[in-house]
Amino acid sequence: MTKLRIDAERLWQSHMDLAKIGALSNGGVCRLAATREDGAGRDQFAAWCREAGLDVEVDQIGNMYARRRGRRNDLPPVMIGSHLDTQPTGGKFDGAFGVLTGLEIVRYLNDQAIETDHPLEIVNWTNEEGCRFQPSSLGAEVFAGNIPLSEGLAREDLDGKRLGDELRAIKYLGQAPVTGRKAKAYLEAHIEQGPTLEEEKCPIGIVDGAMGINAFEVTLTGQEAHTGTTPTGRRRDALLAASKIAIAVNELANQYEPDGRATVAHMRITPNVRSVVAAQVVLTADCRHTSPSALDQMTPTLRNIFEREAKAGKLGMESRIYWSVPARRFDPVCVSALTESVDVLGVSHRLMSSGAGHDAIPVSMVVPTAMLFIPSKDGLSHNEAEYSKPEDLALGCEVMLGAALKLASAA
Amino acid sequence: MTKLRIDAERLWQSHMDLAKIGALSNGGVCRLAATREDGAGRDQFAAWCREAGLDVEVDQIGNMYARRRGRRNDLPPVMIGSHLDTQPTGGKFDGAFGVLTGLEIVRYLNDQAIETDHPLEIVNWTNEEGCRFQPSSLGAEVFAGNIPLSEGLAREDLDGKRLGDELRAIKYLGQAPVTGRKAKAYLEAHIEQGPTLEEEKCPIGIVDGAMGINAFEVTLTGQEAHTGTTPTGRRRDALLAASKIAIAVNELANQYEPDGRATVAHMRITPNVRSVVAAQVVLTADCRHTSPSALDQMTPTLRNIFEREAKAGKLGMESRIYWSVPARRFDPVCVSALTESVDVLGVSHRLMSSGAGHDAIPVSMVVPTAMLFIPSKDGLSHNEAEYSKPEDLALGCEVMLGAALKLASAA
Repeated sequence: MTKLRIDAERLWQSHMDLAKIGALSNGGVCRLAATREDGAGRDQFAAWCREAGLDVEVDQIGNMYARRRGRRNDLPPVMIGSHLDTQPTGGKFDGAFGVLTGLEIVRYLNDQAIETDHPLEIVNWTNEEGCRFQPSSLGAEVFAGNIPLSEGLAREDLDGKRLGDELRAIKYLGQAPVTGRKAKAYLEAHIEQGPTLEEEKCPIGIVDGAMGINAFEVTLTGQEAHTGTTPTGRRRDALLAASKIAIAVNELANQYEPDGRATVAHMRITPNVRSVVAAQVVLTADCRHTSPSALDQMTPTLRNIFEREAKAGKLGMESRIYWSVPARRFDPVCVSALTESVDVLGVSHRLMSSGAGHDAIPVSMVVPTAMLFIPSKDGLSHNEAEYSKPEDLALGCEVMLGAALKLASAA
Repeated sequence: MTKLRIDAERLWQSHMDLAKIGALSNGGVCRLAATREDGAGRDQFAAWCREAGLDVEVDQIGNMYARRRGRRNDLPPVMIGSHLDTQPTGGKFDGAFGVLTGLEIVRYLNDQAIETDHPLEIVNWTNEEGCRFQPSSLGAEVFAGNIPLSEGLAREDLDGKRLGDELRAIKYLGQAPVTGRKAKAYLEAHIEQGPTLEEEKCPIGIVDGAMGINAFEVTLTGQEAHTGTTPTGRRRDALLAASKIAIAVNELANQYEPDGRATVAHMRITPNVRSVVAAQVVLTADCRHTSPSALDQMTPTLRNIFEREAKAGKLGMESRIYWSVPARRFDPVCVSALTESVDVLGVSHRLMSSGAGHDAIPVSMVVPTAMLFIPSKDGLSHNEAEYSKPEDLALGCEVMLGAALKLASAA
């Protein structure tokens, strides 16, 4: 292999141009899935793809596939992709980087007149963020057969609008099949969304798996009481128990890091009035781990924490798992293709696991898959201040290019 | 003194009749201050007072004074009262009991043709609950000169409506002076709003003072981070620190009970999203104590807790006291009048402090004051399930009657 140099300035400029669509005043981006802004972002992406000579196809859940023909179009494509939707106060890079990396690879191959054996497909998956329609990675979940198409189309946002209707309104409810599609490999580049690469001054993370997740919703039910008149021994204080749970979950995280995580980030407190002891708290607590057996230890430990603190606080307690993702190991051949590519470029890298959800996780259930991470400034994502350096984007794209060429070879 | 027996059934029926105004489907009551429902409750009270031959006067902040003339109308009145407004999901007894006790005392004296030396006045104070207009006991605070009249009238609800305008709309913006009014004594009967009397099977609490209160609003500022990708050591988790504060405040409460209290009951969490480490929590933490010197110890201890946990969590922290009430000792003569009255009736009682806010607290700054508590079922108040037994209401009213007669005597 030789070092391949993509056009770093063009790659950066594409990010800046795309970020104008749904731009927020402070540098962030809001392109919620299947909104007008998402439609405009998709239109821009499709226009760029057509300029690059690609055939753009939209499937029945709105996933977009932009195909560069290969020498042998009977062979399954190598897919490169991610998502163009964002959080309500999202940034310029989460998702966009994975899609625009695919676009830059195609532009580079066009410029150099390089043909591949397998076709290449740039993929934009529908509704990765999960903030408008549940769950996250809905388009990729339907692609993988984990959620039936009809159910995916029927998912509603908080206003009761259905995904299928909203995709039709922006002209991205397509005809192409969503399940049963063949692909040789799927590569997804993404910003890390965490601090590890930046902290270790390492420009490339090769992601060989994803943490499994068990996320609980816990309802603690006590009793309202006047804060001025009710001694602690007579209280059934749901917020006090929730606080003890938050601390115990944090202690659990400390035991299982660096390969595990555990967090309480959300509480709905009732009545949440200054002078009334909290009668009810609904909190979420999640645990994550790269190892299925470690996750199998963490999960009942969480349940024990909920039970212990509810009992100590004389509270009613119900818990349910609202989100469960098995730990995934990615495909060794895809991981090797990325590792060999980074070695050719002569830069350092580290193997790592993803702690976040990504389209690659459901896709990996039906297509050999690996991911690549680049550093995120201050580990920030889902945040208007999200930032990755132009040179890190370019380097990540070059590693992806080498891996894609290797995987797209019939040899 | 002889045992005086009021009409227990009439007292109970008055509570039930008043509770029809603003009735909620589950037995609760919603008569927010200066709403149409409050106006209707006031109209009912005024009608009952006029039937009983009283002169009803409304002052410039809407406080109502229903006067029963004495033998010597040059003497200042003995006031008996409380409030008719409720919480949004309030009950039948909080406030109403103190006003209707005054009404039953007057009806009894009329029935028995008993004259007093001093006039009696039943008082309904405006906006005790503080849930529509801040602060609590606004009418009584203006009466006591703690808040200027113009400022009280200008207080706005969450919709920007001014108290003065809202009182005018329900025809209870009166002309009578609110400050400088003379009174010999003020007696307020109230449900306990706590569990102590019920727990001790004691029917009467004589309240000889009120806890001082220092209530803080604390803002903890950290940073948003992805829960799946950010190790705990790299987080600045505002909810974790808030949880540690809630637990430390509860431990402080345990040290200072039974005469002190400390609570965290309210947190506003940002962004409060399941997969994002909380960037900011605004919480309230209050401490209360009957002893000024103990309150002076608790207050800096709270500040130290905030500082310690903010520092441990690498968070920004700001705190301010948003509500401060000095501990009050009530008037010994008024307390004695209640104690002698309960002794004549031959029932047990206990002395106690109020941990809640009451109209009696500001009133006590300008008029000799004491309070009486009756048991609250399960210690509940500010709750549709709030309940006190008919016989407890009647006994409380009889104790108040004896005390009022003693204080209304010129001898």
